[in-house]
Amino acid sequence: MTAAATTRQVAYTGAGSLRIEASAPVPPAAGQVRIDVAYTGICGTDLHIFHGTMDGRVNPPGVIGHEMSGRIAELGQGVEGWEVGDAVTVMPLARCGECPACRAGHSHICHRLNFIGIDSTGSMQNSWTVPAETLVRLPSRVPLDHAALVEPTAVAVHDVRRGDVQPGEKVVVVGGGPVGVLIALVARHSGAEVRLVELDPFRREVAEKLGLTTLDPRGQDVTAEVEAWTGGAGAAVAFEVSGAAAGVATAVDVLAVRGRLVLVAIHSAPREVNLHRFFWRELTLIGARLYERDDFETAVRLIADGDITVGALISRISPLEQAGEAFAALESGGGVMKVLVDCRSTEGTDAR
Amino acid sequence: MTAAATTRQVAYTGAGSLRIEASAPVPPAAGQVRIDVAYTGICGTDLHIFHGTMDGRVNPPGVIGHEMSGRIAELGQGVEGWEVGDAVTVMPLARCGECPACRAGHSHICHRLNFIGIDSTGSMQNSWTVPAETLVRLPSRVPLDHAALVEPTAVAVHDVRRGDVQPGEKVVVVGGGPVGVLIALVARHSGAEVRLVELDPFRREVAEKLGLTTLDPRGQDVTAEVEAWTGGAGAAVAFEVSGAAAGVATAVDVLAVRGRLVLVAIHSAPREVNLHRFFWRELTLIGARLYERDDFETAVRLIADGDITVGALISRISPLEQAGEAFAALESGGGVMKVLVDCRSTEGTDAR
Ligand SMILES: [Zn+2]
Ligand SMILES: [Zn+2]
Ligand SMILES: [Zn+2]
Ligand SMILES: [Zn+2]
Repeated sequence: MTAAATTRQVAYTGAGSLRIEASAPVPPAAGQVRIDVAYTGICGTDLHIFHGTMDGRVNPPGVIGHEMSGRIAELGQGVEGWEVGDAVTVMPLARCGECPACRAGHSHICHRLNFIGIDSTGSMQNSWTVPAETLVRLPSRVPLDHAALVEPTAVAVHDVRRGDVQPGEKVVVVGGGPVGVLIALVARHSGAEVRLVELDPFRREVAEKLGLTTLDPRGQDVTAEVEAWTGGAGAAVAFEVSGAAAGVATAVDVLAVRGRLVLVAIHSAPREVNLHRFFWRELTLIGARLYERDDFETAVRLIADGDITVGALISRISPLEQAGEAFAALESGGGVMKVLVDCRSTEGTDAR
Repeated sequence: MTAAATTRQVAYTGAGSLRIEASAPVPPAAGQVRIDVAYTGICGTDLHIFHGTMDGRVNPPGVIGHEMSGRIAELGQGVEGWEVGDAVTVMPLARCGECPACRAGHSHICHRLNFIGIDSTGSMQNSWTVPAETLVRLPSRVPLDHAALVEPTAVAVHDVRRGDVQPGEKVVVVGGGPVGVLIALVARHSGAEVRLVELDPFRREVAEKLGLTTLDPRGQDVTAEVEAWTGGAGAAVAFEVSGAAAGVATAVDVLAVRGRLVLVAIHSAPREVNLHRFFWRELTLIGARLYERDDFETAVRLIADGDITVGALISRISPLEQAGEAFAALESGGGVMKVLVDCRSTEGTDAR
């Protein structure tokens, strides 16, 4: 029995529905590699897709997934520097190379960005074929399940960099899902003192176990707590990771004069913003999207060195055949942080 | 007849009403100076006060006005470095010196800032007494009517500095009142290319006469114009000076990836902001308020050297006794840019 005959994929077929189906591995063209996928994490964007709100980009049926780890299974023509068996993750961005953003050196926000796993086929399958230039090498000491969190860690690294977080600064992270917790951890590793604001008790508990101090916006007056913590000054940096209107208001309210608000979450609807306070305190709002190559490599290093212990964020690993249940677990809200799909072929065509 | 017997002031007595009245010059205490005021400009904030929306701060009746020029008439004890007759303007900020903002070196946004002319007595009078540390020296080649525009020019200098405008960058200024035009002029002097968006034809005409290129948001599609002008990239920096909800939307829409939006205008009401675009293009919103000492001194230099020709912005100079008509002219909207009140004593107690 060959690998090709047995590979499977999770196809998103339209709002609320996934289908587990047989797939045909795509032979790598010149400059591409085929990867035996180990794990694929499910993120907020995948949930949005699952809800059907991004069908214009995904064009179902299609395979989604972009937070992954795996090993190279096959090399296309002309691919150098890589070997079959190498442990890798993928920075899932394909830029156009020609637009004003690309020409200005900001290709991660390319005007015609192909986000692999959204705009094109993703990793929630046994076998995935991608351009070799998207590969990021994984040191052997990084377990492949942890490596599936390199992508969200790269997001956090990028966000902290956009916020220019300095040692000793006081930082508030609003929203304690996986990206919020990772931002808190990366900011702390940068020398900042951090408070994490999160509604869900389970997520607060995960964060507390990682040594983070949390605030419950239902039971506590977050602005007053931050004011007391900062001696009346307010925080130097706030990260808005909740995606909620109330999260924006909190992030604005906790900031000191000249404070920076890093906008991480996607707010599809326009939000009412207290611009008067931006004027009054000379605040800065900084949009942050995705990551650049450096962020990805920093994320790998932070995880490999044990500086960011991503394993603690993994709540559940579901086999590919049960991807539906994995999405349902996330849908239910509380009691879960990061959920991975185990994409290893049950036929075991290579050793992992 | 002594100077003291004849001085007059414009008292704001409550929404929509001003009273011209006799005043008693305040002898300068230690560390203070008394100024014979030459001119006081009326700005948007003064209009807000006149509308009664800032009575909580102004506490009528009171003398307002903070854009001024004059000559030192009397020195309090211990004031050094100044002489009677020196031409001066005033940076009208008195900081507390103790709050987190002051301690962080941002005393212009002091938590307990006393903005002289709003929170305490202003310059719309013949004789004004202020702390000597607020004085800014005027070179003799700056006419005193022009010097009344140092304060708004300092605002513009501060705003352009907050926006970190670089030579060759393309800049859009939304709102072409005096501060908007001054921002456009300062940005151009910094080497930027500028487009000024303004509804009022008279104000566009004043700006065009100063060599600025203007856009009429009623007759033109500003976003499309900027897109064409920038080869599809968008502008590097936008200044929101209009105070209107539509102005915020325009300033967001015209920006390139990583573009900076400098928020200059006061938006008392929360505004709906397209935060998705901040995320998508990694935009930055930068609050800008008032000025620092450096900005004031730069403004004096730019005016003295003829780099910023503020005289072209003066639409009208009204005698103090007709301050009411001056406010009415501004109220009427169109056909006017900067209006000054001539605060020189009609009795002519010293030569100017
Ligand atoms: Zn993701
Ligand atoms: Zn591009
Ligand atoms: Zn003013
Ligand atoms: Zn202070």
